[in-house]
Amino acid sequence: MMQMTKTFLLIVFAIMAVPSLADEGMWTLDNFPSAAVKEKYGVNITDAWLETVKSSVARMDSGCSASFVSAAGLVLTNHHCALSCIAQNSTADSDLEADGFLAARPDDEMACPTDRLSVLMETEQVTSSVAAATAETAGEEAGEIRRRTLKRLVQECEDASDFKCESVALYQGGEYWLYKYKRFDDVRLVFAPESDIAAFGGDPDNFNFPRWCLDMTILRVYENGEPAATPNFLEWRTEGLAPGEVMFVAGRPGRTQRLLTVADLKFLRNTTIPHWLLRNVELRGRYIQYARTGDEARRIVNAPLQSVENGIKVQRKRLDALHDDALFAQKTAAEQELRAAVAADPDLAARVGSAWNEIERANATYLEFRDDYLFIEVGAAFQGNLFNYARSLVRAAAERDKPNEDRLRPYTEAALPRTRQLTLADRPIYPELETLQLSFSLDKMREFLGPDSNFVRQILGKKSPSALSAELVSGTDLADPAVRAELWNANWETIQASKDPMIQLALSVDEKARALRKKYEDEVEAPSDLAYEKIAQARFAIHGTAEYPDATFTLRVSYGAHEGWKEKGTDVRPWTTVSELFPRLTGERPFRLPPGWSDAARKLNGESKFNFVGTTDIIGGNSGSPVIDKDGKLVGLIFDGNIHSISGSYWFDSERNRSVAVHPEIMIESLRSIYSADHLLEEMGIR
Amino acid sequence: MMQMTKTFLLIVFAIMAVPSLADEGMWTLDNFPSAAVKEKYGVNITDAWLETVKSSVARMDSGCSASFVSAAGLVLTNHHCALSCIAQNSTADSDLEADGFLAARPDDEMACPTDRLSVLMETEQVTSSVAAATAETAGEEAGEIRRRTLKRLVQECEDASDFKCESVALYQGGEYWLYKYKRFDDVRLVFAPESDIAAFGGDPDNFNFPRWCLDMTILRVYENGEPAATPNFLEWRTEGLAPGEVMFVAGRPGRTQRLLTVADLKFLRNTTIPHWLLRNVELRGRYIQYARTGDEARRIVNAPLQSVENGIKVQRKRLDALHDDALFAQKTAAEQELRAAVAADPDLAARVGSAWNEIERANATYLEFRDDYLFIEVGAAFQGNLFNYARSLVRAAAERDKPNEDRLRPYTEAALPRTRQLTLADRPIYPELETLQLSFSLDKMREFLGPDSNFVRQILGKKSPSALSAELVSGTDLADPAVRAELWNANWETIQASKDPMIQLALSVDEKARALRKKYEDEVEAPSDLAYEKIAQARFAIHGTAEYPDATFTLRVSYGAHEGWKEKGTDVRPWTTVSELFPRLTGERPFRLPPGWSDAARKLNGESKFNFVGTTDIIGGNSGSPVIDKDGKLVGLIFDGNIHSISGSYWFDSERNRSVAVHPEIMIESLRSIYSADHLLEEMGIR
Repeated sequence: MMQMTKTFLLIVFAIMAVPSLADEGMWTLDNFPSAAVKEKYGVNITDAWLETVKSSVARMDSGCSASFVSAAGLVLTNHHCALSCIAQNSTADSDLEADGFLAARPDDEMACPTDRLSVLMETEQVTSSVAAATAETAGEEAGEIRRRTLKRLVQECEDASDFKCESVALYQGGEYWLYKYKRFDDVRLVFAPESDIAAFGGDPDNFNFPRWCLDMTILRVYENGEPAATPNFLEWRTEGLAPGEVMFVAGRPGRTQRLLTVADLKFLRNTTIPHWLLRNVELRGRYIQYARTGDEARRIVNAPLQSVENGIKVQRKRLDALHDDALFAQKTAAEQELRAAVAADPDLAARVGSAWNEIERANATYLEFRDDYLFIEVGAAFQGNLFNYARSLVRAAAERDKPNEDRLRPYTEAALPRTRQLTLADRPIYPELETLQLSFSLDKMREFLGPDSNFVRQILGKKSPSALSAELVSGTDLADPAVRAELWNANWETIQASKDPMIQLALSVDEKARALRKKYEDEVEAPSDLAYEKIAQARFAIHGTAEYPDATFTLRVSYGAHEGWKEKGTDVRPWTTVSELFPRLTGERPFRLPPGWSDAARKLNGESKFNFVGTTDIIGGNSGSPVIDKDGKLVGLIFDGNIHSISGSYWFDSERNRSVAVHPEIMIESLRSIYSADHLLEEMGIR
Repeated sequence: MMQMTKTFLLIVFAIMAVPSLADEGMWTLDNFPSAAVKEKYGVNITDAWLETVKSSVARMDSGCSASFVSAAGLVLTNHHCALSCIAQNSTADSDLEADGFLAARPDDEMACPTDRLSVLMETEQVTSSVAAATAETAGEEAGEIRRRTLKRLVQECEDASDFKCESVALYQGGEYWLYKYKRFDDVRLVFAPESDIAAFGGDPDNFNFPRWCLDMTILRVYENGEPAATPNFLEWRTEGLAPGEVMFVAGRPGRTQRLLTVADLKFLRNTTIPHWLLRNVELRGRYIQYARTGDEARRIVNAPLQSVENGIKVQRKRLDALHDDALFAQKTAAEQELRAAVAADPDLAARVGSAWNEIERANATYLEFRDDYLFIEVGAAFQGNLFNYARSLVRAAAERDKPNEDRLRPYTEAALPRTRQLTLADRPIYPELETLQLSFSLDKMREFLGPDSNFVRQILGKKSPSALSAELVSGTDLADPAVRAELWNANWETIQASKDPMIQLALSVDEKARALRKKYEDEVEAPSDLAYEKIAQARFAIHGTAEYPDATFTLRVSYGAHEGWKEKGTDVRPWTTVSELFPRLTGERPFRLPPGWSDAARKLNGESKFNFVGTTDIIGGNSGSPVIDKDGKLVGLIFDGNIHSISGSYWFDSERNRSVAVHPEIMIESLRSIYSADHLLEEMGIR
């Protein structure tokens, strides 16, 4: 909180009665607030500590965090982070989600076809290069030049090193960076518990605490067909943290929006979030009812259902946060204060004073074609893997012939390998599920764009959404990875000549979709980005550079303490124990134990800790992050936040926002006593 | 608009650029603005005209409007208003929804077991009696006394006459009235078209225009087993209105909320509507997916699906309206102006100045137990007919032993016949649908109250929502009307001793549910009602009594003109024709014609008018209302509003809000040429 101005602090104190300096912030390593940590917790966070963390922590490119836990590539992350891999390796006869999985030896480890791990090696600030390139431009043109400049810098970075490079905008464009990664493309499944215990409590308990989830999975990264050497890894401190002890979370928080303007927050509240909920809550209903049609339906819909339910809970609570008058009063006051400070400085006022209105105008422009953009370009009209394959194949053929800087970002040289992996990975395709998703999304297209929209008429013709989707799903050959591989290597003429109906659908919407993307980039994104760059400059000028940037799915470290909170006046103890699990059992999902746990009360120590919470500031994307102690030891595995953590998208509620983690005691004891995974314990140095 | 103050008018003009005096208002007959109609349209609305309208227009107690169209009890209303009757008379082998229905003679007319019609005979203002009763009280006590007083007045009214009496609060409690009705309990189905043409365009076209819906049904009321004598009925003017001609709508608009405080509008926006949508959008998804499991599933879920989809569209557009900055600016300015006027008058300030804050406090109190109240007392946890039966049977037994004024309102002597009818009516119960609904609502109960809520634990025990609902639905005998009839006559001891699991469930929640209702009535409704009474007094003192009251599902007349509007700069012609229907056909629902219409292009005149719009101010509940010309002739049948009409809950957008009606030409031509219903045409005096 120290980086904020005095007025802002007073407002926060008045509203929230913060008892002490809050543990707020997801910090980049070059800007970690060691002094604040030292002052509050009395521990020294050294460069060596930060360096160890950096090399032991990985990003799962599907959207999670992870850490190395052995020298031979073992990776610890959440069960829900590996769910796609687990589902992709499951069949009606061998359901790894339901039954769990343990590889007795490396040869048994199973490929995760769509997973990839990235470890951050170096970072380089390129703000001045980007600023120089866009110096003499404005608006649409600046947006275009910025995009091209960043693609060029990324490619130059890859050409000059063995690293894989990505550009990152911090502080909403206040700073531009190159992040340089080591990549692991070959990821395999080593251990997964049964989902009944990994996700015990299911959607009802999601984002709640007390909790009892063994939400862990162990993966292994390979290089050249052999377990990769990962000399930097985290060692376990098996007893975990003491109550009140300082703790750290290192990982890849996905996105916060704490620096958004009030206009953008209103846009989220009035438009973006309700629209998302209206579609996805219905999809949830369809999934649930589909699951009732049989065991196999339930199995194949489980992963997408879990994902959409998680999203719904997040968006619902975000909406609640945005309806919180106190939040809006604080945001409005802070913005007014910043704008007043800008107005008081003639030079700053001339350079950045118009930024807030520009964002409001960009939103008004966006509203005019938002539905078209969402359904046609972002793909809300065409959900499911099969259309995504078709669009990737169509666009890859069209984009590969262009100069690198002219391409859409997923098809630049740096991004193409990931696009290729996601398109060609051999994973099961379920026609019934694809038909459900496509039919649902075509329904929503007609509902939101209207039955008389030209686009809707072009797509549906005389067909109903369900008839058309059944026809497309049964007619396409794209479920076959060999067909996709052949088309991936095909040129534009071959793609155009394809008789595949899904390819033809993707071709038929591509021109309109690209035009909408261009309109969005030029008329919404470019002016908004430029305005946020200006606001960032104002912030730097007025507040200095000691603020943390919003989360960007890049490496961050948070700090805090192993502490509970007060819920409606009652203290919540910051951990749960094994013995408290059993009274919650009902014998029915999601409150039942898997068969292997039937004897758990005998096999496990009732006093062992199961899940725990801390005050560290995290957000979605931190799933799978290690909890690390002051000595750099592994003391937990983040898998969730409490219900108050969801408002962390917009602000940090230090009194009630808590991160939720799996305790080392339950991980180690269950590996030993339930799963007999002694070889893994040994590899991780636990005896 | 003349009744509003100058500042308010200026604001409205500034925002909406109203071109002329708006046709705003749903007027009671004793306060109809004949002078304004005369001034704008040059026609005299006489007392005789109003009297004819009053006696020819009926309320369908299920929530619609209707009119008499013959001297022998023929009633014209919408197909969607009779949908429950049509569905109740359908089976897997005889699907009247899909195939339509025409009774060749009265003996073939089919009973509508849950329908009832009410015709307004007299009204009597009782504001002073209510005020006298509550004069020396405040808060909870006033609420209780007001409820008891109204029950007493209703009973005295029924004892003193042959009328059926109801109390009505106009102007949010500014006036209290007794409305005295003649009741028709025996309603039968005479004619219904196929739903493919009645609801052509389905949910995608709902609330849109241009439209082509034959959304009509003809019913007949009976007395003593014979067609009732209804000497006052509307005669048809078959060619309909001329463009621009003045028109009137008479019916029972259900509810507007134009006099709500800003605090209450925010509560709707932030809390009530999102919460409703979150539940019902998921239910929609479940219904749709269930419909895919087979033809019979599609048939039985059609009526509830149509109802929930209509509700979703309404609530979505209401939410959009409440996110409209212009609406909120206008509402806020009007409220500030009223409050300023109150503050400027010391006497008024002392009497009513605190009202706005009292409403805000009542909302804050409500939020603390809103979920409990909704799920446990309002029944969001227990959807479906079977639980409703059980609750009615339990409460009827408990309440009937009490003095009339002590009873819950549905169990007072005046209301008991309707409760009995709804509970005992012989209609089909579909166990699969009941299980779906109950399982869904128990799921939502667990989601919103939390798995650790004592109530949730009491209800679910160790069972999942789907297991429990399957068990309850298969275990109960309440699907059998004979069982219900027996329990209806049973005393409290017999009910308590019942082994029926649904009765036992209703018994087990009743104490908690009643406590929540009492808390709601005492701590939310009573202070809020009292505050609105104060605000009404302030309005009367400052604006006089020329405002119209919010809609209350009682008889109102609106006026306006047969005119279109400008949609995004383009004029919308105010009618559609038969020939324009055919290009919209896709052959797939909801854009296909029923088999009987295959020859329609030959049988019908292509130039005949199908649907039309006008500027009359209507809202949900007006469905089935006759459109009437200046001479009291029938010139249309209201069945919908355009998309802009939905914001009519909160304000009247005179530029774009249009009511949508079925044109007499298509009704008469299709009865003659498609349905060969010459006997009905003859009875209605059409040759």
